[in-house]
Amino acid sequence: MAYNEVFQYSIVSALMDGVASRGPPIAHILEHGNHGLGTFRHMNGEMIVLDGQVYQMKADGSVVHIDPQNTITPFATVTRFQPTTTRRATVVGKVGLEALLTELFPKARNHFVAVRIDGVFRKVNVRTAGGQTKPREGMVDVCARQTTHTFEGVKGTIIGFRCPQYVMGINVAGDHFHFITEDRQRGGHILEFETEGDVDISAAQMSRFHLELPTEDDEFNDAELKLQAQGIKAVEG
Amino acid sequence: MAYNEVFQYSIVSALMDGVASRGPPIAHILEHGNHGLGTFRHMNGEMIVLDGQVYQMKADGSVVHIDPQNTITPFATVTRFQPTTTRRATVVGKVGLEALLTELFPKARNHFVAVRIDGVFRKVNVRTAGGQTKPREGMVDVCARQTTHTFEGVKGTIIGFRCPQYVMGINVAGDHFHFITEDRQRGGHILEFETEGDVDISAAQMSRFHLELPTEDDEFNDAELKLQAQGIKAVEG
Repeated sequence: MAYNEVFQYSIVSALMDGVASRGPPIAHILEHGNHGLGTFRHMNGEMIVLDGQVYQMKADGSVVHIDPQNTITPFATVTRFQPTTTRRATVVGKVGLEALLTELFPKARNHFVAVRIDGVFRKVNVRTAGGQTKPREGMVDVCARQTTHTFEGVKGTIIGFRCPQYVMGINVAGDHFHFITEDRQRGGHILEFETEGDVDISAAQMSRFHLELPTEDDEFNDAELKLQAQGIKAVEG
Repeated sequence: MAYNEVFQYSIVSALMDGVASRGPPIAHILEHGNHGLGTFRHMNGEMIVLDGQVYQMKADGSVVHIDPQNTITPFATVTRFQPTTTRRATVVGKVGLEALLTELFPKARNHFVAVRIDGVFRKVNVRTAGGQTKPREGMVDVCARQTTHTFEGVKGTIIGFRCPQYVMGINVAGDHFHFITEDRQRGGHILEFETEGDVDISAAQMSRFHLELPTEDDEFNDAELKLQAQGIKAVEG
């Protein structure tokens, strides 16, 4: 796949309906990108893909460096990231980042944007999903048991995407970011953050989206996959 | 692109918002498939792609064989069609075809299906969109001026797709078919139909979806693209 195209396996509505038992080896996902987000079997933790390396950020706070040949994913979004825009800036909060991205990409309202931020963070609040306790348990229930962590004065990287509104249900409309520390020991799904002075922001607008659906997966075939926009905003926003 | 993958340029919500001035040459679309549907600049007529040939079915009832190098499209969906299932059957109405497709593809509730039907039709009711009368005129208004035609006892071909519910807005959820006569002189977007005895039905389930978004297109960038599910059902259902 060319640079800065989105590749996605399965859809967020499937996670909402608890479809998280099966999927391809993560190595298959990495054929399409080296930068992205996702989750693991039974929604056990948060996935971050950084320079082609895959990390599982678990609810107990630990981080595992994943062998992509021997680990599957029920949902992931990646791109072969090649920044087209870079900026050094201080970012205060998700709202600050939202405004900055809109400024950097004024023509991206209906496109995708891949984002990476490297630097020192005054504070990062994250959550990590602890996984299903039974088959087909939906993401809202799984995230009701999420754990949260706060990191202060840490060096690390934010990886994520901005998606257009019309993909809500297929992916998460709006901004969606994960964080991992430079020592790859801590991280999670970002709830809020603030940088310690200027950080390095790199990003690229994307206009091609490739979706691969689960096959040979009865959970996926049986799921209703109705749009639960409010639920997705609540757990992923 | 491999067989039986969906390639789509732009999204249906863009047509709903009247984004129909620009797009790539149809030859670009044909690089990704030889079977499909779409529309033309300013939503002037219905597009059918049959064995790699492109026809414009116009509101005055005429059909034009299109030169794909010199004609652009603001929206099209195609696949490189290779049927995996064939059946000879009598089909009574869109409801009859809906039931037959569900029988042929019991595991396709959340997948895409490409369909082709060749044979003699007792009756086919079609509509054709007559095109925008001003820039950014939306599809609901364009289709308010559609013309309808009824063909009886004609030999011809139906081409179309079944799309999963969760792509509503990006494409049309459910079944969407166009018809063209064997002599390529008449056709349109199917409102209703009935076969004259058995016809040849061929189809394939599809699990990969590739979306290319308009770039360098201010109409697309400025459009709100809010989901108008009822409106899409009204004009495309």
